[in-house]
Amino acid sequence: VSLWIRIDGVQSDPQRATVAVRDRAFQYGDGLFETMRLEGGAIRYRQDHLERLARGCDRLGIALPNAAALARDLDDAATECRDGVVKLIVSRGDGERGYRPERSAVPRRVVTVYDAAAAPTGVPIVARWCATRLARNPCLAGIKHLNRLEQVLAQAEWQDPRIAEGLMLDVEGEVICGTCSNVFAVVGGTLCTPDLRFAGVAGVMRRRVLAAADERGVAVAEISMRPADIESASELFVTNALTGIRPIGQLGDRYWTGAPIATQLAHDLGLW
Amino acid sequence: VSLWIRIDGVQSDPQRATVAVRDRAFQYGDGLFETMRLEGGAIRYRQDHLERLARGCDRLGIALPNAAALARDLDDAATECRDGVVKLIVSRGDGERGYRPERSAVPRRVVTVYDAAAAPTGVPIVARWCATRLARNPCLAGIKHLNRLEQVLAQAEWQDPRIAEGLMLDVEGEVICGTCSNVFAVVGGTLCTPDLRFAGVAGVMRRRVLAAADERGVAVAEISMRPADIESASELFVTNALTGIRPIGQLGDRYWTGAPIATQLAHDLGLW
Repeated sequence: VSLWIRIDGVQSDPQRATVAVRDRAFQYGDGLFETMRLEGGAIRYRQDHLERLARGCDRLGIALPNAAALARDLDDAATECRDGVVKLIVSRGDGERGYRPERSAVPRRVVTVYDAAAAPTGVPIVARWCATRLARNPCLAGIKHLNRLEQVLAQAEWQDPRIAEGLMLDVEGEVICGTCSNVFAVVGGTLCTPDLRFAGVAGVMRRRVLAAADERGVAVAEISMRPADIESASELFVTNALTGIRPIGQLGDRYWTGAPIATQLAHDLGLW
Repeated sequence: VSLWIRIDGVQSDPQRATVAVRDRAFQYGDGLFETMRLEGGAIRYRQDHLERLARGCDRLGIALPNAAALARDLDDAATECRDGVVKLIVSRGDGERGYRPERSAVPRRVVTVYDAAAAPTGVPIVARWCATRLARNPCLAGIKHLNRLEQVLAQAEWQDPRIAEGLMLDVEGEVICGTCSNVFAVVGGTLCTPDLRFAGVAGVMRRRVLAAADERGVAVAEISMRPADIESASELFVTNALTGIRPIGQLGDRYWTGAPIATQLAHDLGLW
């Protein structure tokens, strides 16, 4: 349940907040979002999120929201609760009928705060393979755009609350990510994660994990990965800006105990 | 400019109509749409559109809108102008944060009427090739869902109003469609159109054209097509529920004069 919402700088009732039907996010999914951890009254990795947003705006040709106004929104959002989630949606703005974006479109920003307890990041999770595949499209890969039907269909595949995440393949059978996380596998001592040239979202936590591993001298590789690489890994974990690093203890009928690299990196990053 | 809008059966001001921020179409593009020709106060091919909508709802696991209520909306929309466009959006409805659709979600329907003169369908158009590629994903191919960033980016590639349509390839280099149309090419006397197993929208007019060709004894083929097939065609045209059948007179530096099969089919279908 959301606690607080502000649309284009104007405070709204979280239960009744609305946007124009003409908003292109509603019409075409024409926009971007960021989901950020609010921790101790501050937005964790705030700058990383804003950088990814800027890359997304550039890729989609959406004007960047006014930096000062957005900073004010985020500052104010961060005071609304100690532990929670701040979700920022930037749509291209209102438009007339038709796909072609108007050059005069003014981007709309919607900032919502949700209450959410901190996730128990050190506890191993149970994961599954999803049947829903991800399409490959370099022009949309890596950014966090609003065209998310693939993730919606993937999460609709299971209801069992004991299963915390589903891993997804692309249409070529390569492993890309979880439905809302990036995935890492330790293979032969190297920390491997799927490259995201064709699909997937370049996660803020993924980038932090790669940097922390590099700093510690762990060999890292962004490569194309198959399910067999994942299943033969000595250690497996998923990352997400909200839940940090989560070791996978079970994936289908495969089990893992212990996650020394995940544990080390979580400590380095101050997550656990 | 829209003349009329009704949201879940409630009339609204077309200039100020809003939907909930929590609507999953706004959050994730989680929904479907239909764009229908209003002609002489009736919706052309109404049943075809409703059938495609039902296929889309089935594919995405979205509950079908109440048939009687939707029929009432469309009946009333059709009385609003003689020549125009009726756009129907069906979203999965409101939701909490997170991709997983709630089983209790109640689909939302938004019906908008736009004034629009009938298109001069017999006049050959100028088309171009788009650089933006379409992803391949069988689970989303064929239906008219709201994840339309690829079409948005493709239409943003040009501004020249003399160019009426852009043809799109998928990431494998196969021709799929126009940015808002299906494409047909006469190759060796056979009327060919790209198969849509991996990408594209199965157009209402496309289906009508295939049926009309079949009825007239024209050989038809839904096949995988390359740009060379298109450029070597003896006749080329695009189809769309709003603009009917439009011959292509120019594509890049290739020119065509006359469109006997398009002309024949347009007559058979009562379009020109």
